[in-house]
Amino acid sequence: MIKTILLNNRPEGKPTVSNFEFVTKDTTLTISEGEILLEAVYVSVDPYLRGRMSDAKSYVPPFELNQPVQSGVIAKVIASKNSKFTEGDFVSGLLAWQTQQVSNGEGLLKVDGSKAPLSTYLGVLGMTGLTAYLGLNEIGKPKAGETIVVSGAAGAVGSVVGQIAKILGLHVIGIAGTDEKIELLKTKFGFDAGINYNTCTDINAAIKKAAPNGVDIYFDNVGGPISDAVLFNINRFARIIICGAISVYNKTETPKSISVQPFLVKNSALMQGFIVSNYAEKFQEAMQQLATWLGEEKLKYTETVVEGFDNIPNAFIDLFEGKNKGKMIVKI
Amino acid sequence: MIKTILLNNRPEGKPTVSNFEFVTKDTTLTISEGEILLEAVYVSVDPYLRGRMSDAKSYVPPFELNQPVQSGVIAKVIASKNSKFTEGDFVSGLLAWQTQQVSNGEGLLKVDGSKAPLSTYLGVLGMTGLTAYLGLNEIGKPKAGETIVVSGAAGAVGSVVGQIAKILGLHVIGIAGTDEKIELLKTKFGFDAGINYNTCTDINAAIKKAAPNGVDIYFDNVGGPISDAVLFNINRFARIIICGAISVYNKTETPKSISVQPFLVKNSALMQGFIVSNYAEKFQEAMQQLATWLGEEKLKYTETVVEGFDNIPNAFIDLFEGKNKGKMIVKI
Repeated sequence: MIKTILLNNRPEGKPTVSNFEFVTKDTTLTISEGEILLEAVYVSVDPYLRGRMSDAKSYVPPFELNQPVQSGVIAKVIASKNSKFTEGDFVSGLLAWQTQQVSNGEGLLKVDGSKAPLSTYLGVLGMTGLTAYLGLNEIGKPKAGETIVVSGAAGAVGSVVGQIAKILGLHVIGIAGTDEKIELLKTKFGFDAGINYNTCTDINAAIKKAAPNGVDIYFDNVGGPISDAVLFNINRFARIIICGAISVYNKTETPKSISVQPFLVKNSALMQGFIVSNYAEKFQEAMQQLATWLGEEKLKYTETVVEGFDNIPNAFIDLFEGKNKGKMIVKI
Repeated sequence: MIKTILLNNRPEGKPTVSNFEFVTKDTTLTISEGEILLEAVYVSVDPYLRGRMSDAKSYVPPFELNQPVQSGVIAKVIASKNSKFTEGDFVSGLLAWQTQQVSNGEGLLKVDGSKAPLSTYLGVLGMTGLTAYLGLNEIGKPKAGETIVVSGAAGAVGSVVGQIAKILGLHVIGIAGTDEKIELLKTKFGFDAGINYNTCTDINAAIKKAAPNGVDIYFDNVGGPISDAVLFNINRFARIIICGAISVYNKTETPKSISVQPFLVKNSALMQGFIVSNYAEKFQEAMQQLATWLGEEKLKYTETVVEGFDNIPNAFIDLFEGKNKGKMIVKI
């Protein structure tokens, strides 16, 4: 019995369960020479997948209709005719939302569950950790004593960004959407200050208060009005790292914000969008550093683990309601 | 008889003549040891001065009320007690809007009217030329075969940007506000295509047509809806150079535009504000290159020369009506 989740139709605005189609086939998969049979163990759901559901030009091609949705998956090798893999290995890679699947092994990375929990290879030691580390360092070029603001701070990427910034000696301010998340930022992740954008009546003023020396780096996961408020507080030569814009992904009209250009020119400031694969040549180095910090317990992580293959679409949709704390993962 | 122009009050929105006060003193200036007496010959008026008229945080401090306005000035040394300057020398520097003034010579650069017309030291060989050259090269990192869009293309900076881009082998598209300016871009400055934003009904589509391979570099002097339209056409790894935002300088409310963040993240694109003084260590090299191209007639320039000290404020105000072609200069 193999279950698959296909893209049934493209969302307008917020994705819903009806965008997906569940298919169950009463079959057994077989493998040929060079192939391996994989069983999904953990599936990653990420905001950027919303982009792939639309039929629009982006850095990754859109998902095709009536084809399986894909994301980062940790899978167990349950049969192998490929010399590089042995039954019982665990691998990480971009795989289909499917309980079992066949692969030729290309693009898969072996992961070691004895060194760190398997799920961390989708999070702090996976793409989200690399995104945090490389975005912050390659674009932000952080210097001890500077001030950084992180939006989506309790999210998978944001919580790692803030912790790395603390390790590097910055003053770290996080913006998130519940008091519980703000508490988590300050107690578990060591942020210096937190702002709850849902209860704060004047985010601009709150940032000014939390960042008396102004903002040198802004790691932006959200866009929209929160990012507008940060702009009023940036310093000369500020670096704004555009990692995501979750607040506008579901907008059907082109969203409007305040004009950033006057702020950038007044402050000789930089705004740079990126995806982690731009820095693929630095993955090795970054992952080693992250693993070292994780081993030293300098880096904490939070996962929201949802159970059950059938809940993948719901877990994905919940990202846009801010229901996750840290990395959102589905355990199969 | 010494005439001075003071800042009388700060503009709200568009500057007017009433923001300035003319003062005439029936006096003769005298100089002490180490000083020189200067007579203004050419005065530069520039959009960025609008920023200094406001009492807002910016990269240069605001002008003080009831004090002389300053800008780039070419002046003649009419008396000298400073060994570095001789009567008859011409100098360039940031000086007051005043017919005659005393200086200790600090920050003044001697300029040679026999090598190039004196006024070019305010334009193509001065701050505007350096702004074009350094903004394009340091941020834009142009490569032969790429496509660049320049807004405010018939302006002092824009016209030089386009020409340098052509020298470097790029496909160059200029946006300007009259058919006459578009004609000038194509005939005199060698742009490949021009778009008149005042008569064009769909700037986005016009850019798409003029840039079939997409836009790799956008040199932005204007901000606002023109810049919004360019965003829809940027390529992966595009560089957007924010030199100015003349379309919004006079707005009294914080202007809104489409959100740039989704475009930047989708395209791993960069947006960087700057002022030319960020690159002071490259002035020498840049000026030599510009002078070489000017000597080889690879670089053309246009000046709009207004006559008479009393017309300085009007010339400045006319910048915001797009009445200048190229560098706006007042001849005293």
